[in-house]
Amino acid sequence: MTSLARDRRTKMAKVNIDVPFYDLDGLNVVWHGHYYKYFECARTVFLRSVGFDAPEMKRSGYLWLVIESHCRYIAPMRYGMTVVVRASLADVEHRVKFLYTILDKKTGRRLATGHTVQAAIHAKTGELCLMTPRIFLRHLQ
Amino acid sequence: MTSLARDRRTKMAKVNIDVPFYDLDGLNVVWHGHYYKYFECARTVFLRSVGFDAPEMKRSGYLWLVIESHCRYIAPMRYGMTVVVRASLADVEHRVKFLYTILDKKTGRRLATGHTVQAAIHAKTGELCLMTPRIFLRHLQ
Amino acid sequence: MTSLARDRRTKMAKVNIDVPFYDLDGLNVVWHGHYYKYFECARTVFLRSVGFDAPEMKRSGYLWLVIESHCRYIAPMRYGMTVVVRASLADVEHRVKFLYTILDKKTGRRLATGHTVQAAIHAKTGELCLMTPRIFLRHLQ
Amino acid sequence: MTSLARDRRTKMAKVNIDVPFYDLDGLNVVWHGHYYKYFECARTVFLRSVGFDAPEMKRSGYLWLVIESHCRYIAPMRYGMTVVVRASLADVEHRVKFLYTILDKKTGRRLATGHTVQAAIHAKTGELCLMTPRIFLRHLQ
Repeated sequence: MTSLARDRRTKMAKVNIDVPFYDLDGLNVVWHGHYYKYFECARTVFLRSVGFDAPEMKRSGYLWLVIESHCRYIAPMRYGMTVVVRASLADVEHRVKFLYTILDKKTGRRLATGHTVQAAIHAKTGELCLMTPRIFLRHLQ
Repeated sequence: MTSLARDRRTKMAKVNIDVPFYDLDGLNVVWHGHYYKYFECARTVFLRSVGFDAPEMKRSGYLWLVIESHCRYIAPMRYGMTVVVRASLADVEHRVKFLYTILDKKTGRRLATGHTVQAAIHAKTGELCLMTPRIFLRHLQ
Repeated sequence: MTSLARDRRTKMAKVNIDVPFYDLDGLNVVWHGHYYKYFECARTVFLRSVGFDAPEMKRSGYLWLVIESHCRYIAPMRYGMTVVVRASLADVEHRVKFLYTILDKKTGRRLATGHTVQAAIHAKTGELCLMTPRIFLRHLQ
Repeated sequence: MTSLARDRRTKMAKVNIDVPFYDLDGLNVVWHGHYYKYFECARTVFLRSVGFDAPEMKRSGYLWLVIESHCRYIAPMRYGMTVVVRASLADVEHRVKFLYTILDKKTGRRLATGHTVQAAIHAKTGELCLMTPRIFLRHLQ
């Protein structure tokens, strides 16, 4: 963890989501794969808050591809719930790792936790970056 | 309708789809918006059969954007069903219009019908083409 | 159109949506089928405002199945846009018809229009209702 | 691992998927959350081959909820690719754990690996089962 990013590491972004009917599955709960959409909504809020979301990434000459995703499902999300999705940065040195928590807004109950890991690659060559490019770290200062 | 496209107009592409669990909604039937994915699968089969799918479109310098979509739902799609999705070309002169039918493979029952309309635009300028570019018509001969 | 529903017919529900990255397609615009999700978000706001959303429908002994959907795409939705989705009730006598408009929040430009039609069926028998059940009309007073 | 399930543990289900255009994201690769749909397609093939898919689960009085999901992304999936998705059962004693691999059909290259864990609960009470119900194990014999 570079010192550059220390301040922003404690930062947490959050977003409220009303569980949409179209995300329910045949068991009447949110289908497990949709949680990654909610994670992404919170990650977007985080990245916009530091001024380095998808358009800025594209202009930087790097792409940040998701190389790992994980979710633990604690209690089902049901229609009528509003959930709070939180994203925070857990690591940026070699890879960009975000942690997520989903809470029931009404009760505060934790419904799910998860993480994603992104790796930077050079957009032109597709070559993997061993360290996170400095342009991203600067946005985290 | 130009004479160029006459032969291919009678052509019909089809694809079988096993209703996936993740496409069900809280009423235990396929959510209505997902039908447009099934339509697209059949349209892709059609376009590949004439050698003019998304990659060839891109190379042609034109984009074909969907400007209208429509679906009538006759009977619900349920888990366990295999459906046959048919796509045929209904018009190509000014716009590219595809018609779709979804049938229950087992019973032959018609489950849905629909259409999409696509307009060609110049990829560089975003300018709308009043007529379908000849490169597409040539693939329909 | 029954007089019962007259007042609520002029009502319009709306919801703001930040275009999510995961809804973009390979042309970098929102994929056309996803617009029906945005329509549903606004319809949900409408139905909740009259106290007759999915849970109340279920308790009423009727289901309202979507039997038709339609969308006209006027200008693409791109990442970074916030859109306003409006839903209003156009008919309730025999079928429940909602009209939708999607606007670019920043410019006010109209991006899409559409409609859905829902039919009531008896949940137990699956039998189609020729008229909209009175329990729904009462919520529109 | 009970001896009941030993034989079926070596079993592997697979399914071919043509990468659909609507699953691409703004970077022109399959969006990472969609991989869980492909995993589910292969899991469905597995469960149907042993005669214990969603409908049989429902009749058994138990639900198998996904309590964990994980994916590693090795190389992007692009439009035009056909991929082979493999599912195999890694554990059934306390939880049902499936492993997945996605391969490029043409080159045999491994594109992703992942797993899901499901827990059985009593459908009526919602109570968690500490051991996998025997009815599922019998189908694995």
